[in-house]
Amino acid sequence: MDKSKKIVLTGDRPSGALHLGHYLGSLKSRLELQGTCEQLIMIADAQALTDNASNPEKVRQNVLEVACDYLAVGLDPKQNIFFIQSLVPELFELTLYYLNLVTWNRLKHNPTVKQEITQKNFGESVPAGFMTYPISQAADISAFKANCVPVGQDQMPMIEQTNEIVRKFNTTYNCNVLVKAEGMITKFSRLPGIDGDAKMSKSLGNCVYLGEEAASLKKKIRKIPGDPNHTEINAPGDPDNALSFTYLRAFCQDKQKLEELETHYRKGGLGDGTVKQYLLEVLEEFLSPIRKRRAEFASDPAQVMRILKEGSLRAREKAAATLSEVRAAMHLNY
Amino acid sequence: MDKSKKIVLTGDRPSGALHLGHYLGSLKSRLELQGTCEQLIMIADAQALTDNASNPEKVRQNVLEVACDYLAVGLDPKQNIFFIQSLVPELFELTLYYLNLVTWNRLKHNPTVKQEITQKNFGESVPAGFMTYPISQAADISAFKANCVPVGQDQMPMIEQTNEIVRKFNTTYNCNVLVKAEGMITKFSRLPGIDGDAKMSKSLGNCVYLGEEAASLKKKIRKIPGDPNHTEINAPGDPDNALSFTYLRAFCQDKQKLEELETHYRKGGLGDGTVKQYLLEVLEEFLSPIRKRRAEFASDPAQVMRILKEGSLRAREKAAATLSEVRAAMHLNY
Repeated sequence: MDKSKKIVLTGDRPSGALHLGHYLGSLKSRLELQGTCEQLIMIADAQALTDNASNPEKVRQNVLEVACDYLAVGLDPKQNIFFIQSLVPELFELTLYYLNLVTWNRLKHNPTVKQEITQKNFGESVPAGFMTYPISQAADISAFKANCVPVGQDQMPMIEQTNEIVRKFNTTYNCNVLVKAEGMITKFSRLPGIDGDAKMSKSLGNCVYLGEEAASLKKKIRKIPGDPNHTEINAPGDPDNALSFTYLRAFCQDKQKLEELETHYRKGGLGDGTVKQYLLEVLEEFLSPIRKRRAEFASDPAQVMRILKEGSLRAREKAAATLSEVRAAMHLNY
Repeated sequence: MDKSKKIVLTGDRPSGALHLGHYLGSLKSRLELQGTCEQLIMIADAQALTDNASNPEKVRQNVLEVACDYLAVGLDPKQNIFFIQSLVPELFELTLYYLNLVTWNRLKHNPTVKQEITQKNFGESVPAGFMTYPISQAADISAFKANCVPVGQDQMPMIEQTNEIVRKFNTTYNCNVLVKAEGMITKFSRLPGIDGDAKMSKSLGNCVYLGEEAASLKKKIRKIPGDPNHTEINAPGDPDNALSFTYLRAFCQDKQKLEELETHYRKGGLGDGTVKQYLLEVLEEFLSPIRKRRAEFASDPAQVMRILKEGSLRAREKAAATLSEVRAAMHLNY
């Protein structure tokens, strides 16, 4: 094994089809990493069940949706390992062993989990599996000896928890089996929703999906707000206050044209309708090949599932090798 | 499948060799059940690690010790399924799924766990795996669709927790996959230690082990206290206050002789030394064949491990069948 090799673990909870926010926040960087390292991309069905226990059909359907999105944007199953979390049962066993290395109190004080509990309005009914999911993530990461995990700033406590477990395991069992991971902070800033909310999110209903149809895209773009102070065409506007420009900055390839538009908007005389028309062209150009490929994959779910199962077998081999070392370190190699 | 068939799950944490207290409390009833039902006997190595994470070699060694004890008392691997918990990884996966069906608060309020936390002096450092072990037990029981679980009165909350999960699972996933279990309260009362402590326990150092050597047995019996009010031979004594009689009542087959001794002790004129000498004969007769068989098995650990591995494969088949139904109910049957 090449010890210096970068091993990346990344993935998504299958809670819905992916949108432009996902593209900027993670898919784009996965495309950049593709081919430069060993990249494992996990569809975390078991983790999605921690707060969707009573909605398993939704989780299952979204496993396929997410996989279609991966394939549609150009993530290649030959250059990456796509896998379904629950098809790698070694992850469950590792999770149970790691649970013994973390105190109950430590779990209670995980800042990411605390924040999510508030967001999800669990009240007094937090599922135990939700409280323990950082341990499950530590299993996901360490099973593949991933040394690089792309995360948002708010997820850094998850990497810290993983590395605490790695240290505790290696110390407790006097070995070097597990490998520390580094969080790779996402360099893209969060994409706002089409309603101007700070976050594009399925639950807020303010998304442009990667598979968005042309007609629906048009409707959505038409609705997005301009600079609220830009009340008439000839008045000067501020691109920093106009959502269209935020999107253009993220997706427009013609940087010169974008600069001209921004200057014009600042000076006055450029209507929001014109900017949005251009944004529509840019997004349509970006989304149309993705939409086409996505439809092809979506029309053949059996093929998509085959790809996921093949990847899951490859992931399983790797996790089984780590588990075998873990069991030996724990004297469980009967 | 015969729907009326009794399926029993029982077992031990491998925390030490078994003693007379284990014989009375569980092994004896397992011998009675042997052949009348499907009895699965689990050596809970993974559960032992929940509070022995840093002492894995002790756990591993005790897996063999406990298995030798089973075989020595006459539990037959053909009539029962002996298995090692961690060799049935389906149990880990079930545990993780069940964690989503139990609230964090519910776990905190399990009376058995609360009591054990105090006993074990965990303070603020309760391992998360210890808090979640009732869920792991629910997986052990339900994986085999066990409908009968021998327990002490203090463990009834574990059965209740299991049945809560069974109900919640079947309701959530609209199925009848999991089966309710009944606790079978042990009919034998707890055997006191040779120092008179209410409980014979390895950690209290007051045990007579099933493999106890004759010389060491003699020494231990000599030390056990008589009725403290029976200060001289001719004074009347109370058998209810003399530990030798407690042991004789449990192990002496000659009930008539025992009654005569009790009457004599009450009247006065029977010395504690004489009672203990008889107890020694009774225990030596009971333990000598067990000791002999135990030594034979202990001299061939490879054979014992073979028995455990064969049993674990049989147990795995059963657990895998249940897991497959569980996954189908959860729409995870990709």
